[in-house]
Amino acid sequence: MSILVVGSVAFDSIETPHGRVEQVLGGAATYFSLSASYFTEVRVIGVVGEDFSAENEAVLTRRGIDTRGLEHVAGKSFHWTGSYLKNLNEAQTLKTELNVFETFSPKIPAGYEDSDFLFLANIDPVLQASVRQQMPKAKMVCGDTMNYWIHDHRANLEKVLVGLDALLINDGEAKMLAGEDNLLRAAKRIMATGPKTLIIKHGEYGATAFFSERSFGSETAGIVAVPFRAPAMPLDAVVDPTGAGDSFAGGFFGYLASQPEVTPASFKRAMFYGGVMGSFAVEKFGTERMQALSREEIDARFQHFRELSHLD
Amino acid sequence: MSILVVGSVAFDSIETPHGRVEQVLGGAATYFSLSASYFTEVRVIGVVGEDFSAENEAVLTRRGIDTRGLEHVAGKSFHWTGSYLKNLNEAQTLKTELNVFETFSPKIPAGYEDSDFLFLANIDPVLQASVRQQMPKAKMVCGDTMNYWIHDHRANLEKVLVGLDALLINDGEAKMLAGEDNLLRAAKRIMATGPKTLIIKHGEYGATAFFSERSFGSETAGIVAVPFRAPAMPLDAVVDPTGAGDSFAGGFFGYLASQPEVTPASFKRAMFYGGVMGSFAVEKFGTERMQALSREEIDARFQHFRELSHLD
Repeated sequence: MSILVVGSVAFDSIETPHGRVEQVLGGAATYFSLSASYFTEVRVIGVVGEDFSAENEAVLTRRGIDTRGLEHVAGKSFHWTGSYLKNLNEAQTLKTELNVFETFSPKIPAGYEDSDFLFLANIDPVLQASVRQQMPKAKMVCGDTMNYWIHDHRANLEKVLVGLDALLINDGEAKMLAGEDNLLRAAKRIMATGPKTLIIKHGEYGATAFFSERSFGSETAGIVAVPFRAPAMPLDAVVDPTGAGDSFAGGFFGYLASQPEVTPASFKRAMFYGGVMGSFAVEKFGTERMQALSREEIDARFQHFRELSHLD
Repeated sequence: MSILVVGSVAFDSIETPHGRVEQVLGGAATYFSLSASYFTEVRVIGVVGEDFSAENEAVLTRRGIDTRGLEHVAGKSFHWTGSYLKNLNEAQTLKTELNVFETFSPKIPAGYEDSDFLFLANIDPVLQASVRQQMPKAKMVCGDTMNYWIHDHRANLEKVLVGLDALLINDGEAKMLAGEDNLLRAAKRIMATGPKTLIIKHGEYGATAFFSERSFGSETAGIVAVPFRAPAMPLDAVVDPTGAGDSFAGGFFGYLASQPEVTPASFKRAMFYGGVMGSFAVEKFGTERMQALSREEIDARFQHFRELSHLD
């Protein structure tokens, strides 16, 4: 099944203990699309400026990603400058230049309305809600967000949470959103506000999916007793953590969309594929690693993740 | 097979967000012994003062733990005062009163020399080395340590590390011991100094075992490509984290000692049992929960851990 993703397509300038790069292709929708493209058909909605070259767009189209929803407007593309010199696990934002993103109003182009799965990457919840409304037939809607929206735009964010099949956030975001430091209690509080399933990412320690009875079609409320914890893989070098979370989301949602049905079993495998794609993303700067994978490499690492975490 | 453990038997005064207790039975050897007693025969070596009552000792003997190696001397028992009010994941030590522990010189009582497995709990590495020397026939030796010994007694600690089959430490200790922030690279450095297997505990995120070719009898050096990551279980309430690591060690080593052979498969199951025992330990203050478990409860939680982390 096809996925529609809305989010940022951007240029990033990044410094990590392994070096620095200037103005490389990035953005949540870019990482997500590249990652999901190894599993299913992907359509992207976003906005770029005049500095976005044909070669930049070809990075997406070479992976079969449908870029008809990528608006080209006058001005400069979104530019993020960040550093991981202080902490490899958390980006320090040095500069955010929204540029063309400031006046972005996402529109669904003809031919996109039949997308089965919808991913709302980390952008203004007002834009997430607008896309959600324009896609009433989407079968599964998954969303991401970040501290800034939780802290300063909570009312708008809550309107998005109500309609989510799954929310993907990290530990710190989950604790902030719930106002609760215990992760299990935080999960229960967040799921009471809408999301049928909550995926909390733990960085180098993997990710946990908390299910509710509603995760797999039942109307009963309440959290399911046994969550699911997918591992991450100890890596010799994390060259650039940028996009790890978006690549996780792309692997997770891409694999799920490729399956005939969303079941507990396919959901758990999807969590593993999320971790696999996140582990590839950080091996090189920017999207370099995500551009040139093969399904064989991906499945070999999936087996590695299984061996890493399974008793037999 | 039987386990001999040397370490602290103490009284703890603890405050956590869930309350406070004064002078409850604690100490690394106590938690370890209680935890391991659900799997195999345990013998303890330690020292206590005149304040250590017959009822205190009965907590151990009721679980079948052999306390012939528990020296009773004049003075007060070791007393630790700690707080988890600031951070539930890391104890803040308010006071350490070594008391009778200050002049402790561990001796192996008659009948203990044939112990097959030896656990060197977190004490002065000079004492760990002394016990190791007195137990030349031990088939498997596993040790713990902490920041203080790593930082201030490194030369003594290094003499212990050389002879270890397995070292159990947490993330922060591993990074400090290796002088390296990347866990995989830290593991390689530490294993080059002696330990055949390194278990790094990640608190609420589980634990990772890094194996070498020497872990299962080969003489070849070098780390094995695929480590093993055991989950932890998201808990609704962590009442008192004290002793979680020692209970992990007891479950891990106790299960391993109960098995006919140390193989990759039994080692991985032992890692799961470690997590299981750690998850029980934090449910109540002090050793209360570790005193009154049943093997049925333990195995039910083992199944829960499997369901939590396995694809099928």
